[in-house]
Amino acid sequence: MMSRGATTVVRSVVGQMGPRLFSTGVMKTSTAALVGSEKAMVAWWITSSPVNGARNASTMTLGDKQQKEEAVGGSATAAGSSQKAKEVVSYWGVQPPKVTKDDGSEWKWNCFRPWETYQADLSIDLHKHHAPTTFLDKFAYWTVKSLRFPTDVFFQRRYGCRAMMLETVAAVPGMVGGMLLHCKSLRRFEHSGGWIKALLEEAENERMHLMTFMEVSKPKWYERALVFTVQGIFFNAYFLAYLASPKLAHRITGYLEEEAIHSYTEFLKELEKGTIENVKAPAIAIDYWRLPADATLRDVVMVVRADEAHHRDVNHFASVTDVHYQGLELKDSPAPVGYH
Amino acid sequence: MMSRGATTVVRSVVGQMGPRLFSTGVMKTSTAALVGSEKAMVAWWITSSPVNGARNASTMTLGDKQQKEEAVGGSATAAGSSQKAKEVVSYWGVQPPKVTKDDGSEWKWNCFRPWETYQADLSIDLHKHHAPTTFLDKFAYWTVKSLRFPTDVFFQRRYGCRAMMLETVAAVPGMVGGMLLHCKSLRRFEHSGGWIKALLEEAENERMHLMTFMEVSKPKWYERALVFTVQGIFFNAYFLAYLASPKLAHRITGYLEEEAIHSYTEFLKELEKGTIENVKAPAIAIDYWRLPADATLRDVVMVVRADEAHHRDVNHFASVTDVHYQGLELKDSPAPVGYH
Repeated sequence: MMSRGATTVVRSVVGQMGPRLFSTGVMKTSTAALVGSEKAMVAWWITSSPVNGARNASTMTLGDKQQKEEAVGGSATAAGSSQKAKEVVSYWGVQPPKVTKDDGSEWKWNCFRPWETYQADLSIDLHKHHAPTTFLDKFAYWTVKSLRFPTDVFFQRRYGCRAMMLETVAAVPGMVGGMLLHCKSLRRFEHSGGWIKALLEEAENERMHLMTFMEVSKPKWYERALVFTVQGIFFNAYFLAYLASPKLAHRITGYLEEEAIHSYTEFLKELEKGTIENVKAPAIAIDYWRLPADATLRDVVMVVRADEAHHRDVNHFASVTDVHYQGLELKDSPAPVGYH
Repeated sequence: MMSRGATTVVRSVVGQMGPRLFSTGVMKTSTAALVGSEKAMVAWWITSSPVNGARNASTMTLGDKQQKEEAVGGSATAAGSSQKAKEVVSYWGVQPPKVTKDDGSEWKWNCFRPWETYQADLSIDLHKHHAPTTFLDKFAYWTVKSLRFPTDVFFQRRYGCRAMMLETVAAVPGMVGGMLLHCKSLRRFEHSGGWIKALLEEAENERMHLMTFMEVSKPKWYERALVFTVQGIFFNAYFLAYLASPKLAHRITGYLEEEAIHSYTEFLKELEKGTIENVKAPAIAIDYWRLPADATLRDVVMVVRADEAHHRDVNHFASVTDVHYQGLELKDSPAPVGYH
């Protein structure tokens, strides 16, 4: 029989596990989709939380408030939750800045701000290819080519679905690389050359591709399960590859991006033929890439493909510069940060 | 006996491993500290690489150039390395923007740009404390308190050394949290609420603290070894904690930040007493926090301590909002991104 403390720990930990299986719930893409109590909290949060008051509440502790929270507990009513939320946020309140668009309407997105939007460079060369020469290059190239085969069999010409699912994979390398370089910079007391930021930017950019394509192509339950499984495998495989050889890892990513450019070109052909409906561009895409208000899916695919071309360049460059026998390391070559 | 291909793989992989042990080499803090060939390459890179030409070189492959690289190989002479570097960078050339300071001098830093600098809010409340109420809070609080004891024994009143070494630890939680939220957002097809960016910002900010303090307090070989070991343990422990319970992980980080604020206050006392020399502020600190040109170490510790107070608020808030029984998750509460 477990002690009371141990029971509490187990209950807390197991209780946290519940929602961490793959979610089949409603996807919330903006505050408009939140339920009443959450919307009330977010709205209060954005406009009214007394952040200065919260910061200067010096001697008060959260003890009393926390006990009141726990007394309410369980599933909260809208009013109760909003009240509790006020108590919760007002003490530690760190208010995100209130931001509006140029036309005065509220900025809808939490994961990027207006100053983080950009216009893609559509003149970027889509045809550049790194011809594999060293053994590692060839290993990388044929690994990517062999992965293409089952992918083509699974997706066939369903490019919208392909884009949505493969962006969940594409957003992993930048994060893994950025994290490993971050840890390296810390333990070796060395500067990063800006590469941590460059790779994390890439990961976030790919995640924005996902946030966009999931508006267009909603994932089914078995597609979600597949994404879940693939992430577990790919994340660990790429992590190990990066530990063993950053040069190999970046080369693989460079070749993956070359394949992505090809896939998006095929996507555009299907849109032009009319096989895939050229729907209106999602709002998030219009804001993120500063597209015109009447932009369509075709415009979105054009800018996403331009992003992939840039990532291809960055990763092939990272692979080339992180070459031990050249005596260079990534940190000695300034990273292409702030491209956007 | 291994096949030739296998030998090549082993040699490549083992060759990469060499420089990945903890570095005792000269710390390079700016381009001024690079050796001749590297400086030439970086200088050429920043000012002259024909990025537009590189982007439009559509049909050319790197094949011939790569073979020329390999023929030179080994340790390169300054001229050879610079020439090779030109060939290497010109093809995949992604030029970072040329940036200058307000006074026209060259911007020295690759890991942050002028628009990423800020002035810290010194009015932030340093005395706020989250009184532990739930079991997880108490577990977090006593874990942090128990870690303080051996830390105090090791560092005593050597606060400069303490700051330098503990910032290598402080930069880990934000990166681990950010990465796990990133992966969650991808596999669940959900928005992040801006928290990925908030946590990655925190990690980068702590790393900038390290980049600053390592100018003031140079690590000895055994301190480097200790940092190396601690990173291996702490990274994995925090990773597992975050997987099991983000609430616990954020609470631990909140308490760690409270301890950091206390330590920096003690550091300031030693500076005021004169026990620790109040040296001129490092250039990187003056640029990053927009300090006056005659700023001293005391000014740096003041702004760093204000940063830690902000991180304390963010993490205690993240811990409070990510409470399963409140029915809220981080993604439903807009993150305090862009604080700076």
